[in-house]
Amino acid sequence: MKVINDLLGYDDFKIVQNPEWFSFSLDSVLLPNFVTLNKDVKNILDLGTGNAPIPMILSTLTENTNIYGIEIQKDIFEMAEESVNMNKLENRIKLINDDMKKLDQYFEANFFDVIVSNPPYFKLEELSKKNEDEHKTIARHEEKITLRELVKIARKYLKNNGVFAMVHRSDRLIEIIEEMRKNNIEPKKIQLIYPKKNTNSNMVLIEGKKNGNPGLIVKEPLFIHDENGEYLEEINKLFFRR
Amino acid sequence: MKVINDLLGYDDFKIVQNPEWFSFSLDSVLLPNFVTLNKDVKNILDLGTGNAPIPMILSTLTENTNIYGIEIQKDIFEMAEESVNMNKLENRIKLINDDMKKLDQYFEANFFDVIVSNPPYFKLEELSKKNEDEHKTIARHEEKITLRELVKIARKYLKNNGVFAMVHRSDRLIEIIEEMRKNNIEPKKIQLIYPKKNTNSNMVLIEGKKNGNPGLIVKEPLFIHDENGEYLEEINKLFFRR
Repeated sequence: MKVINDLLGYDDFKIVQNPEWFSFSLDSVLLPNFVTLNKDVKNILDLGTGNAPIPMILSTLTENTNIYGIEIQKDIFEMAEESVNMNKLENRIKLINDDMKKLDQYFEANFFDVIVSNPPYFKLEELSKKNEDEHKTIARHEEKITLRELVKIARKYLKNNGVFAMVHRSDRLIEIIEEMRKNNIEPKKIQLIYPKKNTNSNMVLIEGKKNGNPGLIVKEPLFIHDENGEYLEEINKLFFRR
Repeated sequence: MKVINDLLGYDDFKIVQNPEWFSFSLDSVLLPNFVTLNKDVKNILDLGTGNAPIPMILSTLTENTNIYGIEIQKDIFEMAEESVNMNKLENRIKLINDDMKKLDQYFEANFFDVIVSNPPYFKLEELSKKNEDEHKTIARHEEKITLRELVKIARKYLKNNGVFAMVHRSDRLIEIIEEMRKNNIEPKKIQLIYPKKNTNSNMVLIEGKKNGNPGLIVKEPLFIHDENGEYLEEINKLFFRR
């Protein structure tokens, strides 16, 4: 099954996906809107790009940047390519179908100004394979890449003072911070995401700077739903640009 | 100058303080209401207790616990003693006038179920001595104790699986987490405090467990003021118990 959905509610911006595998989600909209993008940014990399929602959104938020995405799953990569072509973004977005552990075949170390990732959230020991499609498993569980490996890769390919941003589960925040610091990526900006008011946070956006100085900004909290389960206005603005 | 103020808005609960030095603040009300206190808690220690607002609030939140506070500044310690006596809490709260680095003269290692602290927030290099009273300097700046030393002391005197909770500045959160983990105090619960909506967080409540397993809960955010600068209802409830 393959469907073509609107991305961002733009009539002329489409994304190809298979809802039986997984669909791009709010996480992928929040991350590109969170990461610090200044005018000097030339090269951006998305680690584990899926069907490329993050590169596509980044293309609307930057000008004249080269946006790269790497995705290990061939059929998802092919859908991503289709989306990029359909939106005529071939000049901005270059996709690679490979294991991110083989990035050295494509790029020099210290090449990127910005690296982003919406990685698998769950450790392998949390895996319950019951009825789960393999595509979902790879996207959600650390089967092909662990947090530790991912942060190490980010460090290698980031420029000095380059920025690494990730969306992840709040309950793994301590581990994320530790892995970033071990790799000299100093956490500089955090935003906690709450499904609704008066609940614990379930997700976190975090940005670090390679060889950056200590000193953290914790941004205002981001609530997703109101009491009726509807998206809050702020989220609607991000998600649908309206 | 010495004044007697209501603590918690209870007519029969008083605290002695010198507003020219410093007055107990919201931080000291939030921390005892944040820390996990279960029925097995017998011995609690407050590191740098000032005029003892935290022990006094803890006495209202627990039964049959022994609450200890240590304060290096003699005249502030004396005011704390006066408050404890005035409120007839001598049986619950024991205060020590000494440097917390000398705690081994008073307690065995691994003695406390719970240790709390509202420590100096500022590094010495952030010190601007301009017109600042020495009492304030010691309470606010890491002149007598650094974060690193404080966490080390907490580790030493905490029981296995004992709980350490602190209120501190959000911009030092990464450093706090690192010091806690270095001392095998695993961060388990965090709550971010925001002066008002749509601003960055300025303070954080954090709790760790000695030799605890990884896994963090990020509690709902806590906003202090509304748009008119008034305390929000939730804060009024904590601060004034009404």
